[in-house]
Amino acid sequence: MKRVLTVEWIPESGASLVPGCVRILDQSRLPTDVVFMESVALDEIRDAIRTLKIRGAPAIGICAAMGVAAAAQQAGDTSQEILRVVERACERLATARPTAVNLFWALDRMKQTAHENAGLAPEALKECLAAEAIAIRDEDAAMCRAIGRHGAELLKDGDAVLTHCNAGGLATAEFGTALAPIYVACEEGRRIHVFVDETRPLLQGSRLTAWELRQAGVEATLICDNTAAQVMKEGRVDAVFVGADRIAANGDTANKIGTYGAAVAAKAHGVPFYVFAPTSTFDLHALTGKDIPIEERNGEEVTNSFGRQTAPDGIEVYAPAFDVTPASLITAIVCEKGILRSDFAENIAAACTPNSG
Amino acid sequence: MKRVLTVEWIPESGASLVPGCVRILDQSRLPTDVVFMESVALDEIRDAIRTLKIRGAPAIGICAAMGVAAAAQQAGDTSQEILRVVERACERLATARPTAVNLFWALDRMKQTAHENAGLAPEALKECLAAEAIAIRDEDAAMCRAIGRHGAELLKDGDAVLTHCNAGGLATAEFGTALAPIYVACEEGRRIHVFVDETRPLLQGSRLTAWELRQAGVEATLICDNTAAQVMKEGRVDAVFVGADRIAANGDTANKIGTYGAAVAAKAHGVPFYVFAPTSTFDLHALTGKDIPIEERNGEEVTNSFGRQTAPDGIEVYAPAFDVTPASLITAIVCEKGILRSDFAENIAAACTPNSG
Repeated sequence: MKRVLTVEWIPESGASLVPGCVRILDQSRLPTDVVFMESVALDEIRDAIRTLKIRGAPAIGICAAMGVAAAAQQAGDTSQEILRVVERACERLATARPTAVNLFWALDRMKQTAHENAGLAPEALKECLAAEAIAIRDEDAAMCRAIGRHGAELLKDGDAVLTHCNAGGLATAEFGTALAPIYVACEEGRRIHVFVDETRPLLQGSRLTAWELRQAGVEATLICDNTAAQVMKEGRVDAVFVGADRIAANGDTANKIGTYGAAVAAKAHGVPFYVFAPTSTFDLHALTGKDIPIEERNGEEVTNSFGRQTAPDGIEVYAPAFDVTPASLITAIVCEKGILRSDFAENIAAACTPNSG
Repeated sequence: MKRVLTVEWIPESGASLVPGCVRILDQSRLPTDVVFMESVALDEIRDAIRTLKIRGAPAIGICAAMGVAAAAQQAGDTSQEILRVVERACERLATARPTAVNLFWALDRMKQTAHENAGLAPEALKECLAAEAIAIRDEDAAMCRAIGRHGAELLKDGDAVLTHCNAGGLATAEFGTALAPIYVACEEGRRIHVFVDETRPLLQGSRLTAWELRQAGVEATLICDNTAAQVMKEGRVDAVFVGADRIAANGDTANKIGTYGAAVAAKAHGVPFYVFAPTSTFDLHALTGKDIPIEERNGEEVTNSFGRQTAPDGIEVYAPAFDVTPASLITAIVCEKGILRSDFAENIAAACTPNSG
């Protein structure tokens, strides 16, 4: 299966990780142009995150970690100088996007690595920082693979899956979350068809998911979001697979706007509805979906989406970024530790216990 | 209430209908530009229909009838010459759109009027043809008003209605079908809020419905189609109002793609779901929705809708123009004769009996 990697560390030679550079697939140019950007310049890498050339919380975290490693390799001859550069790079990158938790988590991890290895010789410390960034990437890839392996148990040859938004490889190191089981099943020779909701207003489905499925050679059919219920009515959907932005302790799941409508339609047609996410997505402080704040987006994304005004001046717009699908509509939640079925509260608590699963 | 009329016959003076011209609101320029086109040229009027400057089956029929009247007034000095011009105009206009039943119906009526009044003096015959075109318009306006009056009984002050596509004044002579009850209720001083589905792929909701509601001073909120279920979940929708393209004998209703999904969501949230259409929409030859053929549209409407390519080259697209909402999800069907509740089969048959209601 052909894979296009969202973000990579490219060392100059095979012998050492340093010097290397960060290679990013510019998602703002998809689906028409496949353009990679290679850079060691902190401001360029920060801008790539800020301007959504790279998006998806895990991918942002990986990219930032690699940005820190790139900055460090250009630092002076002492380990103290490297520490200073790492601190400054982390400060700068932390302001690239306001809310991506993975960004701060990855930067903290790079700072900690720098401090823990401050006693090393400068070149060894630089190598160590690049290795840490690659480890963050590899761990994410492994986690997605694990979600994919568990989720693939839900798919049989010939199944058709409906998905919403992009919870695929473009948002993560490699396989994504909701798309991971599809990639795993296809690798194993099963034939899976994917119905892709275009996902208004920003069209992550048509721009990104449809693109990456085609790249991977997975059969896909693009539909308008409002066609999902009709496709289910026609008996053409065996399951709905979606990602998650946050999952409450009881299993209520916040995900891209439109997910809830797809879940309501799935329930009405007896189609199982699955959520795929790493355990880091569970928020045990949110007891139910009511505790998850929902960001409201600028109405311009609806009225002026693609360089053309498609609604009258001054029209009021309601554009929540996410909705919450209640646990009662969710058949199972699949994380890297396995498939969680009801009782969600108990199973989520167990999955979140360190060293469980 | 300020109204912008989709199509009008504008006589040169008040004393006589002839000479006059056809005035069309160019819907292809909405929602950004309000441009009227005035013409007596048959080819210009035909082109306006063909290029969707005017759309909506009733509006197309009215426009074509007025086009015939405009052609007739330019004919020579004998009634025979007028008859020939009318025949030729009807032939030419009949090829403007392939499937709009109202178009053929209106042209037949103009031909019949010409033949029945062939004995009149030329000027009287021309006057008679202009009067017939205006009568077709007035009858449509009266039918929409009647639908509006019956439908307004379903609305109380402060209600919020969700609508899909454009079943408003822009598609008809004046008040539309699904929007007519809202206009009537607002005229009567009730305050009604409308949630407007943008209606992908061609955005009739955002381009047309949102525009005409604002023109009329009706409070409206634009949403993406995938947000309808969420708005219902928030308890903000008291009813769903939609039009219909064809209604089977048992009440199954074909309407713009996405209507079925809205009906499924309405059912799940206990929100009543109403269909508004003239009795001419009932097709007693279609026993159920299965007998209604569903046109499939060009996938380009989904992949290239905003003047920009938003999906990868070669992606398969499923883009039905309509879906069928089963009668079981419909609370009532409102036609010019009244509100039809279950048993739909019996009530539809009665409404379709001449001189009933």
